[in-house]
Amino acid sequence: MSVERLAIVGLGLIGSSIARGARTYGLAKHIVAIDRDRHVIERVQALGISDLATTDAAEGVREADLVILCVPVGAIGAVAETIAPHLKPGAVVSDVGSVKAAVVAAVTPHLAEANAFVPAHPVAGTEYSGPDSGFATLFSNRWCILTPPDGANEEAVERVRALWQGLGAIVETMTPEHHDLVLAITSHVPHLIAYNIVGTAADLEEVTQSEVIKFSAGGFRDFTRIAASDPTMWRDIFLTNREAVLEMLGRFNEDLSALSRAIRWGDGEALHELFTRTRTIRRGIVAMGQETAEADFGRARTAAPASVQG
Amino acid sequence: MSVERLAIVGLGLIGSSIARGARTYGLAKHIVAIDRDRHVIERVQALGISDLATTDAAEGVREADLVILCVPVGAIGAVAETIAPHLKPGAVVSDVGSVKAAVVAAVTPHLAEANAFVPAHPVAGTEYSGPDSGFATLFSNRWCILTPPDGANEEAVERVRALWQGLGAIVETMTPEHHDLVLAITSHVPHLIAYNIVGTAADLEEVTQSEVIKFSAGGFRDFTRIAASDPTMWRDIFLTNREAVLEMLGRFNEDLSALSRAIRWGDGEALHELFTRTRTIRRGIVAMGQETAEADFGRARTAAPASVQG
Repeated sequence: MSVERLAIVGLGLIGSSIARGARTYGLAKHIVAIDRDRHVIERVQALGISDLATTDAAEGVREADLVILCVPVGAIGAVAETIAPHLKPGAVVSDVGSVKAAVVAAVTPHLAEANAFVPAHPVAGTEYSGPDSGFATLFSNRWCILTPPDGANEEAVERVRALWQGLGAIVETMTPEHHDLVLAITSHVPHLIAYNIVGTAADLEEVTQSEVIKFSAGGFRDFTRIAASDPTMWRDIFLTNREAVLEMLGRFNEDLSALSRAIRWGDGEALHELFTRTRTIRRGIVAMGQETAEADFGRARTAAPASVQG
Repeated sequence: MSVERLAIVGLGLIGSSIARGARTYGLAKHIVAIDRDRHVIERVQALGISDLATTDAAEGVREADLVILCVPVGAIGAVAETIAPHLKPGAVVSDVGSVKAAVVAAVTPHLAEANAFVPAHPVAGTEYSGPDSGFATLFSNRWCILTPPDGANEEAVERVRALWQGLGAIVETMTPEHHDLVLAITSHVPHLIAYNIVGTAADLEEVTQSEVIKFSAGGFRDFTRIAASDPTMWRDIFLTNREAVLEMLGRFNEDLSALSRAIRWGDGEALHELFTRTRTIRRGIVAMGQETAEADFGRARTAAPASVQG
């Protein structure tokens, strides 16, 4: 199933990847790219990843059958308000936000009865942002979570589901509240502690920034990838999923206190037990095709050759 | 400069990588592999990465010019005690432990005056363990930190430095105490919080283990790599670098409390400021060749094709 006219609002990493994927896999006859930033629209035109590219949201969504909002969750309510009067009856609205309850609350009031909102969240991404960073296979073999309201228009849900399956994603459905709890632990708190430790390391007086950088291969550098993610997007996520993030952070802190106590009192058995248990989870992730089994994410063997030493 | 006879005690990831590298880059005329585990010795023989492989440490170190201890730091004192009487005068002893002050205290008392101890720590590794996981280029373009005591035998230090430079590493010297502080933030605390969040996620009741695995691409999966590291090695690190780890963990916790407070009170500006600042550190790491600039560590574009969806 392909849509006649697909409009994408916000051509960053996710939006531009949807545009590329929709083109590559033939999921839409016409692809419209909408972004308020003129420079983004110019890049989109240069990249040739849409049939029409415009800064005019009203014009862009007119005649669209499916509109995907790919803007930071803090801006999504305002965008919904702007486009709502220009949607044709029957047009379906969706999004890609990493938070769902707050997005539903922000978008739904603006839409007419004739425009179903089917919230979606593709759990995929990289640390890069902007229209140049997207690629058609970003969603391949990744999960996309839909959180349609009770009694949602089935044809509307199907239209969104078909797009994501066409992009290679595995679609799962749950409530917005459960989504927000699950993502708090699998995504939001991991980002928070990554941002935090990079900040801590940068602020030390006893250890120089140059030392932190040189010796980062000991583990620290992994965290810097996540901590290089888009600041606006992540600010909005923490502000709009506050309750679930603080709840999960509370659990994390309790466990960290226990671990810290085990170190202080030399409880090697407790440490060894945890460190053994955590290995199983990674095996599950690799087995489910959500991670490479290659050592060091495949980075290790591609290191610069010894000859760079001169 | 190459050593006549190099003995490696402990043929795990690091020990077997040294053996492979020494052979590949011609850094030793004879390479002796010593491991108390008969199965490891059998694998080393099958892999053909040493000239002699034995479970008998006394026999193995006899006639060696350079002996590298590659065992978990908790076992290093006992190994030093075992081999000490069998070392020839002038033989230099080194190690690869991730902790230095405790290793110096554990090893030095056992060695004769004629056997200099030059502690070393190559800041490199993967999440895999055992003799099969090693490879010759593991240390290429990575730092190796030496912590020789004041007034150390210069020829002994030079012998160890030459080995590491031959393996492609960049050698730097500091005190054991400073090493332990630097590694606490660039390696030990990152591992601790990775182990911790994987444990927290595994123990939740509201979110199933299957959900944690499926939606791990949101960031969580990165942490599972580090949390799959060798449990014995890491237990020993935390037990022997307790003070520095708890000190750095205290800083991390203070910063996390402030961040948590910013979320609770909706201080978007503080969040955005931190999230912007942390990007710079990664750029420094990439610029120094300690990290790939490829999106998602280069994993993203090698994802399974959309066709796996069927």
